[in-house]
Amino acid sequence: MTLRAWTYRQLEPEAWLERGLSPVNRLLTAAILVATLAAVLETEPLIAMPWALTFQRIEHVLGALFCVEYFARLWSAAERQRGSPWRSRARFVASPAALIDLVVLAATLARAQGLALLPLRLVRLLRVLRLAKLGRTSAAMRRIASAVHSRREELAVTAGFALALLVVGATALHLLEGVVQPKSFGSIPRALWWAVVTLTTIGYGDVYPVTVGGKCAASVIAFAGIGLIAMPTGILAAAFSEAHRHDRVS
Amino acid sequence: MTLRAWTYRQLEPEAWLERGLSPVNRLLTAAILVATLAAVLETEPLIAMPWALTFQRIEHVLGALFCVEYFARLWSAAERQRGSPWRSRARFVASPAALIDLVVLAATLARAQGLALLPLRLVRLLRVLRLAKLGRTSAAMRRIASAVHSRREELAVTAGFALALLVVGATALHLLEGVVQPKSFGSIPRALWWAVVTLTTIGYGDVYPVTVGGKCAASVIAFAGIGLIAMPTGILAAAFSEAHRHDRVS
Amino acid sequence: MTLRAWTYRQLEPEAWLERGLSPVNRLLTAAILVATLAAVLETEPLIAMPWALTFQRIEHVLGALFCVEYFARLWSAAERQRGSPWRSRARFVASPAALIDLVVLAATLARAQGLALLPLRLVRLLRVLRLAKLGRTSAAMRRIASAVHSRREELAVTAGFALALLVVGATALHLLEGVVQPKSFGSIPRALWWAVVTLTTIGYGDVYPVTVGGKCAASVIAFAGIGLIAMPTGILAAAFSEAHRHDRVS
Amino acid sequence: MTLRAWTYRQLEPEAWLERGLSPVNRLLTAAILVATLAAVLETEPLIAMPWALTFQRIEHVLGALFCVEYFARLWSAAERQRGSPWRSRARFVASPAALIDLVVLAATLARAQGLALLPLRLVRLLRVLRLAKLGRTSAAMRRIASAVHSRREELAVTAGFALALLVVGATALHLLEGVVQPKSFGSIPRALWWAVVTLTTIGYGDVYPVTVGGKCAASVIAFAGIGLIAMPTGILAAAFSEAHRHDRVS
Repeated sequence: MTLRAWTYRQLEPEAWLERGLSPVNRLLTAAILVATLAAVLETEPLIAMPWALTFQRIEHVLGALFCVEYFARLWSAAERQRGSPWRSRARFVASPAALIDLVVLAATLARAQGLALLPLRLVRLLRVLRLAKLGRTSAAMRRIASAVHSRREELAVTAGFALALLVVGATALHLLEGVVQPKSFGSIPRALWWAVVTLTTIGYGDVYPVTVGGKCAASVIAFAGIGLIAMPTGILAAAFSEAHRHDRVS
Repeated sequence: MTLRAWTYRQLEPEAWLERGLSPVNRLLTAAILVATLAAVLETEPLIAMPWALTFQRIEHVLGALFCVEYFARLWSAAERQRGSPWRSRARFVASPAALIDLVVLAATLARAQGLALLPLRLVRLLRVLRLAKLGRTSAAMRRIASAVHSRREELAVTAGFALALLVVGATALHLLEGVVQPKSFGSIPRALWWAVVTLTTIGYGDVYPVTVGGKCAASVIAFAGIGLIAMPTGILAAAFSEAHRHDRVS
Repeated sequence: MTLRAWTYRQLEPEAWLERGLSPVNRLLTAAILVATLAAVLETEPLIAMPWALTFQRIEHVLGALFCVEYFARLWSAAERQRGSPWRSRARFVASPAALIDLVVLAATLARAQGLALLPLRLVRLLRVLRLAKLGRTSAAMRRIASAVHSRREELAVTAGFALALLVVGATALHLLEGVVQPKSFGSIPRALWWAVVTLTTIGYGDVYPVTVGGKCAASVIAFAGIGLIAMPTGILAAAFSEAHRHDRVS
Repeated sequence: MTLRAWTYRQLEPEAWLERGLSPVNRLLTAAILVATLAAVLETEPLIAMPWALTFQRIEHVLGALFCVEYFARLWSAAERQRGSPWRSRARFVASPAALIDLVVLAATLARAQGLALLPLRLVRLLRVLRLAKLGRTSAAMRRIASAVHSRREELAVTAGFALALLVVGATALHLLEGVVQPKSFGSIPRALWWAVVTLTTIGYGDVYPVTVGGKCAASVIAFAGIGLIAMPTGILAAAFSEAHRHDRVS
């Protein structure tokens, strides 16, 4: 096997013949997780300031690693199919995954000159997802995806009911509490925030009804909200039960 | 096919022979959703004021559309059955759905002269529900309805338990906290608001026990409340599991 | 059929041969619910004061009704079995259900002379439960009871885990936050209130960690708390699924 | 049977031939629970101070009991296997369970001289867990463990999604609310506390978004959080359903 073929197999998860991920892809997954953790921690001045040098070094090392990885992928892309190696490479460069990688890479390098593009640094997590789909958890992910997919219509109907309940609840509370608490319930879009916080049972406590009528309406909506949680759970439970059975039969 | 027959098939979802909804009904569904969104957004002065003219235009266009739709339905109702076309039209006018449409339509037109009847504008969402029952999600809705229906007695018993737990919880906290916090726990109806907020696990934080006895009782009730959520979820999960199996067999 | 036999069949739910409840028992169920509602509403001065006379009348009528019912039961208890009618009546008087009824009745009569024994008035709800077990929802109640019973050991283990998690969580937060917030986390019993409010996901907001260590520990405990809700729900879902299957087979 | 063999059977749960736990182990379980309760209550000065003498006595009695138990275990360990009794005893002393017991025992004795090692006193709960695995609930525990184990990969994927959602949510709110509320959303690690409190639907109310953008993003994340609870519940429900079926067949 040539070095190029070896590189290709190591980098391309689908070309890896054994189970799980190749050693190089395992290393890259770890590097992405470290880079994400660094990006997260660096936003906190209390951590970033005393460890500034460490963060800079981590970034330089990881930036270099991702740079090498990009060019290694580009070079080994020639293995993908027969025919002109440059056409394969052009295809690689134009693929969405490689374009995202390039943008993130450019942002990482630019950051050395002062730009802070936080979301771009987190985009790399998508890569972890892509790799996870091929790793040890692939069968589990497939089962979850197939369970959700088999009930996508039931789940859509539940989401529709949830949306309708949100609008109905917000309208009711707007009519009942709008005059007393204009800041929180003065319009339906404002009351929608209350409806979201209530139906998800979060209940921060920044907005809540204070009139008797508002409390009665809120109680009805709150109990309907339990159904909102019970429905998708029940649907998914039934789907998982079936997905597992099928998976074992087939 | 005559124009009247074509109109009837386009407007009457049950007369549409193909799968899903007719193009005209799809347009009307979109129009209803836009009208609802406009009604929701218009209650917020920060949105309504700078876009007043746009909202007015949307309403005029949609008002005209719903007007045309009503008369087209009236005219094509003659296709419904053999016999006198006027009897069919009279039946259409007297049907609950058409009466609701007429009231909403009248309210929309009246609104141009200054009346704001918010709830009526939202009633149109019922139409979306009616159409959804015949559209692509109809099988999913039937499955959900049949699952809930097959366990209506179990769910009623759970609701009964929930109601009893509400009353017991409110009574306990009224007895334990009523003297310390008369405003929140001074009577059972007042304590019921606490019971609702606690058993649904919302927990706004506007009312909570402060005495040791109240906290102990609240803890017991809070854990019983987990069962309150677990029961209907478990019942629905079992029902969905069965509903899907039956649906596939039949 | 003698009047005594007719009375017995009307009053004794198990002696009623047809499906559901007898007309007299339906009336009594309604009377109990009205009495409970009156007891609940009467605790609120804003309702009780303007409607004082109405509440008094309702109580007099219902008090008389429950009095008549008790003596009718006593008289017709002679139908229960062969042998001395007085022995049957003595057995009825000594039965727990009749003793509870007698105490509640005495309390209701005493209340006319100024005593307010709120919990006793709510005890009557137990009667509704007893009647519900024999009414239309009896099969559903049996299925729920059998589902819970078949998994009582799994549910007990889950409750044990919940209790352990409560103690561990309270201890952790007491150690991490005890110095900073002595009023809320100064001892494990105090921190237990936080643990209950957090693990049930109520989150009133009266107590929450403020230190970094406390927030980290609380995060771990909060996610473990999701399992606390997921476990019994999953167990019950599986049990209901099976209970229904058995019920239909047998 | 010699006294040593009798002691061994009483103390070693696996050597007990009948169902459940031996009388001595039942007594020890009760003693551990009492010791834990005493350790918990003693942290509260309002309880510890007036009952100081009682707590001291309980500790002396239980300390002596656990001392006797340790030496009885050490002595009877010779029954474990053929060969040198001292080798068996050395193995017992070196076993992790006995080492933990020894450390806890030492801490209990040291406490009489003023040291308060709270966590060590709670470690004994591990013993209860160990005994519970062999007692009446052993089959239920096995079923729960096997259900969780059979879906460990699905649950790991769900945990991964939850972690990703936490990071994405915290990043979004940091970007949208960081400037307005620097204390709560000024960095991603700070925003993570909000994300945990929101996704677990606790909602203490110490941190919540106040801008329109932040509320919109929080709404989306909150609804995604419902899936976070529905997924593991559904997975566990399916697993329990299957675990029970298998357990009854085998």
